[in-house]
Amino acid sequence: MTHAYQEVIRMEEERMDDQEAFLEQLYGVIVARFSEETESSYVARLHDKGIDAILKKVGEEATETILAAKGGDDQAVIHETADLWFHTLVMLAQRGITPEAVVNELRRRFGVSGVVEKASRRKG
Amino acid sequence: MTHAYQEVIRMEEERMDDQEAFLEQLYGVIVARFSEETESSYVARLHDKGIDAILKKVGEEATETILAAKGGDDQAVIHETADLWFHTLVMLAQRGITPEAVVNELRRRFGVSGVVEKASRRKG
Amino acid sequence: MTHAYQEVIRMEEERMDDQEAFLEQLYGVIVARFSEETESSYVARLHDKGIDAILKKVGEEATETILAAKGGDDQAVIHETADLWFHTLVMLAQRGITPEAVVNELRRRFGVSGVVEKASRRKG
Amino acid sequence: MTHAYQEVIRMEEERMDDQEAFLEQLYGVIVARFSEETESSYVARLHDKGIDAILKKVGEEATETILAAKGGDDQAVIHETADLWFHTLVMLAQRGITPEAVVNELRRRFGVSGVVEKASRRKG
Repeated sequence: MTHAYQEVIRMEEERMDDQEAFLEQLYGVIVARFSEETESSYVARLHDKGIDAILKKVGEEATETILAAKGGDDQAVIHETADLWFHTLVMLAQRGITPEAVVNELRRRFGVSGVVEKASRRKG
Repeated sequence: MTHAYQEVIRMEEERMDDQEAFLEQLYGVIVARFSEETESSYVARLHDKGIDAILKKVGEEATETILAAKGGDDQAVIHETADLWFHTLVMLAQRGITPEAVVNELRRRFGVSGVVEKASRRKG
Repeated sequence: MTHAYQEVIRMEEERMDDQEAFLEQLYGVIVARFSEETESSYVARLHDKGIDAILKKVGEEATETILAAKGGDDQAVIHETADLWFHTLVMLAQRGITPEAVVNELRRRFGVSGVVEKASRRKG
Repeated sequence: MTHAYQEVIRMEEERMDDQEAFLEQLYGVIVARFSEETESSYVARLHDKGIDAILKKVGEEATETILAAKGGDDQAVIHETADLWFHTLVMLAQRGITPEAVVNELRRRFGVSGVVEKASRRKG
């Protein structure tokens, strides 16, 4: 790995410390909608139906993402991946888990110790 | 919606404009690994096997996320959702699509438009 | 629907009572419906929408089967597995593959070869 | 393995030649293998790991079936559908549900009343 690349990684890691991602902001919107009227909010209806209804959507959107990525154009992939990420955020909200916890898990694996992780990950 | 909450939303929206999310940084790491040796990098091996191998992982991790969210503890949900998001990033990288495009799609649906649209409906 | 066609359907239904595997008979019904009007037949509509629409249903039903088998009662498992098998038959029909080909593949692995292979190991 | 058990296997093999649906016979083989040693039997290992491990396989094989049916050749579709059906049989066995119950559900929907069902099924 070149020094220039290490520098890019270092700067990106610094930016990680003071930034909050859009997904976490979207999560806040989802949680807020959980308490809205079900007539006016798709998210409130999903919340009301419960975890199984939400997980069916996660499965559906995963399938549609796979089909789009296999044979669709870029716009279809973007559309379906957005649907999938959105419904995983609804799922996290239903379980009372923040996306920050998921990002921290990824950060733990790939963040500061990204290079080290790679070295120790020889399986798969 | 209280004024204080609207203020939080407004500040978060401002932060959206100058922040890059961790997922986009992780995406950069994934793309960099695509050109590494397959012996030392799980991501390089996935890249080498091609889109079908990556999509099989997306399907697998979606299933494991669903099972965890249905019956597992929080730590399992966090772990599996991290796996799912990570492999969707690998999928996007394989297709040459940035996570920014996906976030922009979500932002278009739920960002300024989503929150402000709701706020303006209440005011109107 | 022509008289000749109704006659084919009637004969197929009679054959259901005898000893041929029901899934292969159901497959025949599915193939017959592919040429019906889409207004009157769910299967004809799926056929008309194409392979992606059928595969989305396979993914959906797989997810619902998993959720039922994880936490549901027996009736839910039976219901969802029936949906999953049915839509895999529609998928096979769309691809022009008979369920007999799938059963022969299973027979090759587990039928004479699978069981007898185990039996001969014990004898040898 | 006791002599009585070998006798059961032998009789099952003979029955394969007659008119009972092969999937139901395969189910019998799966149930028999549940009580075998995990070292020598893949099915016994799945049974031992429990329902989550089996459902992960159902999800994996559903994804692989979808990918094969979307872009693969006929042999890949046959191979993956066989894997999917097989693992749904293992799932049914784990839950103590017979494939006959699933076939009866399909028969109820599509059997004698196939034409009637179609007429009443205008949705979807």
